Amino acid sequence: MDKASQDRSVLPCGHPSMQSIDGCILCDDNAFHMPAEDFLRYGTAALEWLNSYYAHVESLPVVASVQPGDIRNLLPPTGPEIGEAFEKIMADMDRVILPGTTHWQSPNFYAYFPSNISGPSILAELLSAGMSVQGMLWKTGPACTEVETHVLDWLVYAMDLPKSFLSTESGGGVIQDTASSAVLCAVIAAREKATDGDSNSNGLMTPLVAYASSETHSSVEKAIRIAGIGSKNFRVVDVDKNFAMRPDHLQKMISDDRVAGRQPFFVCATVGTTSSNAVDPVRPIGEVCRRENVWFHVDAAMSGTVALCPEHRYLFDGLEYADSYNFNPHKWMMTNFDCSVLYVQRKSDLIESLSINPEYLHTKEYATGLAADYRDWQVPLGRRFRALKLWFVLRYYGTEGLKYHIRYHIALTRLIQHKVQEDPDFEVVVPAVLNMFCFRLRKGRSKTEALLAAINETGRAYMTHTIIGEDYVIRWCVGQAQTRMRHVLETWDIVQRLKQHIA
Amino acid sequence: MDKASQDRSVLPCGHPSMQSIDGCILCDDNAFHMPAEDFLRYGTAALEWLNSYYAHVESLPVVASVQPGDIRNLLPPTGPEIGEAFEKIMADMDRVILPGTTHWQSPNFYAYFPSNISGPSILAELLSAGMSVQGMLWKTGPACTEVETHVLDWLVYAMDLPKSFLSTESGGGVIQDTASSAVLCAVIAAREKATDGDSNSNGLMTPLVAYASSETHSSVEKAIRIAGIGSKNFRVVDVDKNFAMRPDHLQKMISDDRVAGRQPFFVCATVGTTSSNAVDPVRPIGEVCRRENVWFHVDAAMSGTVALCPEHRYLFDGLEYADSYNFNPHKWMMTNFDCSVLYVQRKSDLIESLSINPEYLHTKEYATGLAADYRDWQVPLGRRFRALKLWFVLRYYGTEGLKYHIRYHIALTRLIQHKVQEDPDFEVVVPAVLNMFCFRLRKGRSKTEALLAAINETGRAYMTHTIIGEDYVIRWCVGQAQTRMRHVLETWDIVQRLKQHIA
Repeated sequence: MDKASQDRSVLPCGHPSMQSIDGCILCDDNAFHMPAEDFLRYGTAALEWLNSYYAHVESLPVVASVQPGDIRNLLPPTGPEIGEAFEKIMADMDRVILPGTTHWQSPNFYAYFPSNISGPSILAELLSAGMSVQGMLWKTGPACTEVETHVLDWLVYAMDLPKSFLSTESGGGVIQDTASSAVLCAVIAAREKATDGDSNSNGLMTPLVAYASSETHSSVEKAIRIAGIGSKNFRVVDVDKNFAMRPDHLQKMISDDRVAGRQPFFVCATVGTTSSNAVDPVRPIGEVCRRENVWFHVDAAMSGTVALCPEHRYLFDGLEYADSYNFNPHKWMMTNFDCSVLYVQRKSDLIESLSINPEYLHTKEYATGLAADYRDWQVPLGRRFRALKLWFVLRYYGTEGLKYHIRYHIALTRLIQHKVQEDPDFEVVVPAVLNMFCFRLRKGRSKTEALLAAINETGRAYMTHTIIGEDYVIRWCVGQAQTRMRHVLETWDIVQRLKQHIA
Repeated sequence: MDKASQDRSVLPCGHPSMQSIDGCILCDDNAFHMPAEDFLRYGTAALEWLNSYYAHVESLPVVASVQPGDIRNLLPPTGPEIGEAFEKIMADMDRVILPGTTHWQSPNFYAYFPSNISGPSILAELLSAGMSVQGMLWKTGPACTEVETHVLDWLVYAMDLPKSFLSTESGGGVIQDTASSAVLCAVIAAREKATDGDSNSNGLMTPLVAYASSETHSSVEKAIRIAGIGSKNFRVVDVDKNFAMRPDHLQKMISDDRVAGRQPFFVCATVGTTSSNAVDPVRPIGEVCRRENVWFHVDAAMSGTVALCPEHRYLFDGLEYADSYNFNPHKWMMTNFDCSVLYVQRKSDLIESLSINPEYLHTKEYATGLAADYRDWQVPLGRRFRALKLWFVLRYYGTEGLKYHIRYHIALTRLIQHKVQEDPDFEVVVPAVLNMFCFRLRKGRSKTEALLAAINETGRAYMTHTIIGEDYVIRWCVGQAQTRMRHVLETWDIVQRLKQHIA
């Protein structure tokens, strides 16, 4: 056995009698940490492992073909007492991790929504992890804080978002982990605003009511529950034939609730729903909210990135009505998860509802109000330097590069949807506005379910389903960063072939 | 100008007329992404940059000496349209990021609580970012899910935690981003349990009341507010002379609230408070909670790691009463932020309060209940593969290595505290139980404030303050992974020297 693969059984002098403070025990030896030359060597091995992964991920089954418990069975019941060689740990990336991985980075991943990555983003994550700045306060991470504020201002310009979202105006942007957390912050801010900061469950206030469509992401109802509003006060607004929220029905529900003595306080509209990528009409919904003095949140987690392209900005018409707006660069802007951007019209709304300021967190800069302390813009106190990867991505690709990426996926979607539409066995139930469409076999649910299962069982592609109205449909979403024309065409060939056996 | 430093002005064929789906526009070219050879080359450069950073971080001012706005002034007002060379972006790590960084990874960082990192953890973060599995469901990341469940079971054994926390029993563990999110999940679960899942702000239920001591972290009150309980229903329990919660006062407050018709539902005890590292008596508080049928959460965010060492386990006596328990490997277990572990006695408590299950997230495995879908154990839907770094760390160091690390820091703390105690100008206001003590100049607050400012202005160390009782004190926390004896001794020399000028 060569030295490198041996367990790391040697600890510094002093161990294991490290109980007192005298003698050699408090030496300056730090040999139990990884030496710089090992960090470089093993880090290079990790980079090469990733390159190899990317080179052959396309050939791996997209969905892991393991059963619950299979991965745990590969692991010892207790952890080691004595450290192991890094080589031995790395070897388990192949033995344990790869077989248990559903490959979000396969170019044949068309399921859910994509989770984009890119070279510059991954390397920024490495640098961020390596420096490990904790930017809870401006003072604990000035660059961590200011790059975030600044880059989110860049995006306001690049995407032609309302200028009130700029940090230099009343608003500002903040990076959250997910759209779920972003909408939770919006709900909390709306709740505090509606109750003059006196929300509680003590039972003397007017019941608050929130509104979203049947197609709205489940995270909105989850936020309503977390915030103590209760699912029973979450109203589901009707959708039209395109699965978009009906502003007239929203208006009616709000009016009815007011008559019944309840207090409408929050509306969520979606640009690009999860089920079918439907687009709620932002302007008329915003007008209802403005008239009714109700907080208006717009969720564009998946589709928000398209605002980089002028030809898609009509989808966001009326966004100036939004009190808060969210989209996820970690879905379609080649920035690693987690990176979910929340903009607000008035930063004071977030700060007033989420700030608690104990003595041990007091800083001079906070007192003067000159700097953003982002802990007051989110649920957690601590935070990573997530803006670094977004900054790297925006600079490496430039807005033109990102626009190319978006347009390419949208064009691919149209190409493949056209083929599905031309096939008489299929029905496109929801055509693509952007990069996703829903389709089914005309022979009905059981055949469509069987086809989806068959597609995924090949391991050559991964799609997921939803229910649209009464229909069980397959969602085909094109957004993985490496998906190219040949991938969608090969997948279509597979679908065509499998169809024969189902029908 | 050599090729490498030029802007990336060449996009694939088809750009910028990428509006239709015909012709060469949909080629298979993906040249706008980073090629494998560049990823390896730039990645190696990033690793070398980090090695260089670690080699000289000790010589950098620990606290960034910039003013609000300084970093933004180094950045252009809008982002680039055409992508930039990676070399140019990397160069800004030195020009922009370093001057704006408060160095949490300096061995002279004694402020707040530490944010540990280590070689194996950073490289695991690289691999996790590179594969970018999104483990919201078991199916979308079986290894991501099962390694997490399994490694958290390892820690139950290694730390001798209650066996009911094991995933194979009624409980289980989950990685959250921070202790703030962990306690929020606990509060939500407690609230739903107390109200039979019918919580809302509709005003007909008995007011819920939560309890913690004056020394409890602000995240608990923040969670109470977020959950809609309201700060006015957050009770502050008295502490004893060691700043530990008084169980008798807790019992009295609970009884008083019951008499007044309110419903006590949540108690948080802390093992190692943020201000002074005080330890609440877990067993008697747990007994009160059990008797009163109130949810008992134990927060050991900083100090929980010491349970690896048998000699410190007395601090956790009574933990079997805890309905939920939290500690942060990202503080003192050499695992990069974010990695905050939440254990619960009954996994059903979390799932029943946080699960919302729309059609597009249905999977066969969920229906059978065989696999953990961790989205139901947390606020966000999406999640990174954070268990990878914890797994790497536990294997690379082994429990013996981690125990050495903990004992070394505790011994260093005792060493330096002894010196402070021997100096007649100083008073140790709160002696160390573990790796932190609080001290002040006997001459009072203004002198102590001046001394702290002077220490931090040298750039040679970073400490922060708190208020203990009536006293303004300096906190000295030893926990940064690279802190060795010479660092604390050099810092003590600086404190001694500065003291002369203050007195």
